[in-house]
Amino acid sequence: MPLIRETFLAHDSSDPLRSFRDEFILPDGVIYLDGNSLGAMPRVARQRIETLVSKEWAQDLITSWNTNGWFDLPTRIGAKIARLIGARDDEVLVTDSTGINLYKLLSMALDLRPDRKVILMEGSNFPTDNYIAQGLVRQLGRGHEVRFAERDNFAAHITPEIAVVALTQVHYKTGHVYDMNEITERTHKAGALMCWDLCHSAGALPVDLGAAKADFAVGCGYKYLNGGPGAPAFLYAAKRHLDKAIQPLTGWWSHDDPFAFEHDYRPARDIRQLMSGTQPILSLGALETGIDMMLRADMTLIREKSMALGDMFIALMSEYCAEYGFSLISPKEATIRGSQVAFSHPHGYAIMKALIEARIIGDFRAPDIMRFGLTPLYTRYQDVWDAVQGIKAVMDRKLWQNPRFATRESVT
Amino acid sequence: MPLIRETFLAHDSSDPLRSFRDEFILPDGVIYLDGNSLGAMPRVARQRIETLVSKEWAQDLITSWNTNGWFDLPTRIGAKIARLIGARDDEVLVTDSTGINLYKLLSMALDLRPDRKVILMEGSNFPTDNYIAQGLVRQLGRGHEVRFAERDNFAAHITPEIAVVALTQVHYKTGHVYDMNEITERTHKAGALMCWDLCHSAGALPVDLGAAKADFAVGCGYKYLNGGPGAPAFLYAAKRHLDKAIQPLTGWWSHDDPFAFEHDYRPARDIRQLMSGTQPILSLGALETGIDMMLRADMTLIREKSMALGDMFIALMSEYCAEYGFSLISPKEATIRGSQVAFSHPHGYAIMKALIEARIIGDFRAPDIMRFGLTPLYTRYQDVWDAVQGIKAVMDRKLWQNPRFATRESVT
Repeated sequence: MPLIRETFLAHDSSDPLRSFRDEFILPDGVIYLDGNSLGAMPRVARQRIETLVSKEWAQDLITSWNTNGWFDLPTRIGAKIARLIGARDDEVLVTDSTGINLYKLLSMALDLRPDRKVILMEGSNFPTDNYIAQGLVRQLGRGHEVRFAERDNFAAHITPEIAVVALTQVHYKTGHVYDMNEITERTHKAGALMCWDLCHSAGALPVDLGAAKADFAVGCGYKYLNGGPGAPAFLYAAKRHLDKAIQPLTGWWSHDDPFAFEHDYRPARDIRQLMSGTQPILSLGALETGIDMMLRADMTLIREKSMALGDMFIALMSEYCAEYGFSLISPKEATIRGSQVAFSHPHGYAIMKALIEARIIGDFRAPDIMRFGLTPLYTRYQDVWDAVQGIKAVMDRKLWQNPRFATRESVT
Repeated sequence: MPLIRETFLAHDSSDPLRSFRDEFILPDGVIYLDGNSLGAMPRVARQRIETLVSKEWAQDLITSWNTNGWFDLPTRIGAKIARLIGARDDEVLVTDSTGINLYKLLSMALDLRPDRKVILMEGSNFPTDNYIAQGLVRQLGRGHEVRFAERDNFAAHITPEIAVVALTQVHYKTGHVYDMNEITERTHKAGALMCWDLCHSAGALPVDLGAAKADFAVGCGYKYLNGGPGAPAFLYAAKRHLDKAIQPLTGWWSHDDPFAFEHDYRPARDIRQLMSGTQPILSLGALETGIDMMLRADMTLIREKSMALGDMFIALMSEYCAEYGFSLISPKEATIRGSQVAFSHPHGYAIMKALIEARIIGDFRAPDIMRFGLTPLYTRYQDVWDAVQGIKAVMDRKLWQNPRFATRESVT
């Protein structure tokens, strides 16, 4: 097919997911390629939040905990996420933030492997996971170690010293995808536990934690799940571990009978043990609408479109922007690439600022990486064409050299 | 003044806080006496959330982190809460839940007192704080102990063995108020650190952590601060401790330079070190509106009205309900009573259910306590009169004997 805009419009016309775009509110004239950082707003989220605010909070007040089901939101939404990640509905919970959830699970994992002292992670991972592990090890003061390896020889580091491997399935910068089955199997062969970070996986590609026999997982609600800014995170713990160890943030929501107000802590024996305190209900309500929509979409179609959008982005960059010094840092091979494409460029920061001013929104990750998220529920094929033409225009016209783009600030 | 309804209406007419009630949306025909569990909705919260959703999320998307100030919400709202609790504006942060914040501060406190092994708490405290301390001690596995004492001889237990005293200023059941200055001073004399739980204090009575020289504090956003269901909690850490110890949930928001994506954790030296991950922005937005309103009210007037409402509630119960077996468990003396009155009754659960059906909303705390919250920004004097007449009607007509009220569920 020729690389002309009409080709991309034709792809949009025949896209089986095309109706989903109308279910979002998107700003006019913007090409939004940052849904891997903050997903767009489902139209229905606005109505849901209005109901939560004007009826459930203002009118029903405290009775909403029972009558409007607020108590059940963490497990109810968790059970829905479970369907996206191949878990049982009683193995997933929505609560707290990704980092705090990882902390809970790593602490449990170390308890489950008392003779081992090493947490193995990827050094180039999104830093919060690594910082959380370092914080836990420092706090425990029992000679644990956070050991780092990189993708090229990661598996070789999975040795019988390792207590738990904690790995982000899709790399936040490059989009490289780890083989979940292979790494989990290797981890189990070494007698270690496996914890997956699904921040860039959930809602972006098919995930089957059950088939992989993964032990633990965490993930984020505000990226591909379109749950709204700072939406609470989720966690997964395989049922076989739930009565073998407890997580340390033992607030009353994790008690076996919270409303008995018992004197001493007694852990819930099910997934509720991973809770701690009361959750932000307004933010939970928004998150549920994003997940409900995602559950109506076919994940196979989402993945196919995501790979096609990425392939086209890369092909267009080769065709139109080859002379400008961009280096593709994402895999060329779609099957091992997540739902993003990333390029490094020495002037990446200023170029991204110029693109954002031209209403093409991706993001920048230090030191030199420009990241474009592809979110098949609302990213169109024509957006990919237009984005690359926009990049070409910024480079041709040297718009990135504007002195306003010289000072750094950043976005998550 | 005679105990007739007109007297109470007259108090409302001359109430200097009366205009605040119009700033809330309250359900028609309901007497809401549970603002100590979930505060009512400020009218402006609805508008703020609508802006957050329809403009900041839907239109401005990821750029809102900078352009709409999302990054600064935890410290900006924290600085506002600081004014309500006598802290410096760089000593308070809004983040996570009360229990998780307590966990962070207790972990810091134990690090600051490495030679001591005891956390001293009140055994009859709201259980989540005690459970959190028990979880920390169990996790650390270094021979720490959570020791419990009760009000009647609490101070005697503050000995040189104690690392940290963690105490809720206003008791969740009885409403008893501890003397913050006295307990903190005694704690410091024993060489220990003092952590106050302000869940039932912030927005309910004047608090001056600075004058008391308190070391740490936590508190909740959804009660007297009217921050909405599950609103994020706050924490306070005296500036003198901020570079002496670090909290253990070291997510990227607590890093000295989060967007440098450095390989290793390096703690922020200021209050941001107490953050962990991304916060729920919609819920934060609602919380800020509640606090902004509270800051416009005179805390001295709030406290005076709160004490008067409580005194009147107690006097009316003596006058009209003396024969029905209620026992006042709150202090009769207003100056040592928080912004609630509580009564025990063997049939307290069923009576509260009958009251709620009659649209008089308080709450129940196991095993037998009926709790009525007094929130001077929207509770009227006439509400106190009407509530007690309602209680009398439920007892006279034995409405609580309805079999529907025999099965227990509960609300937070």
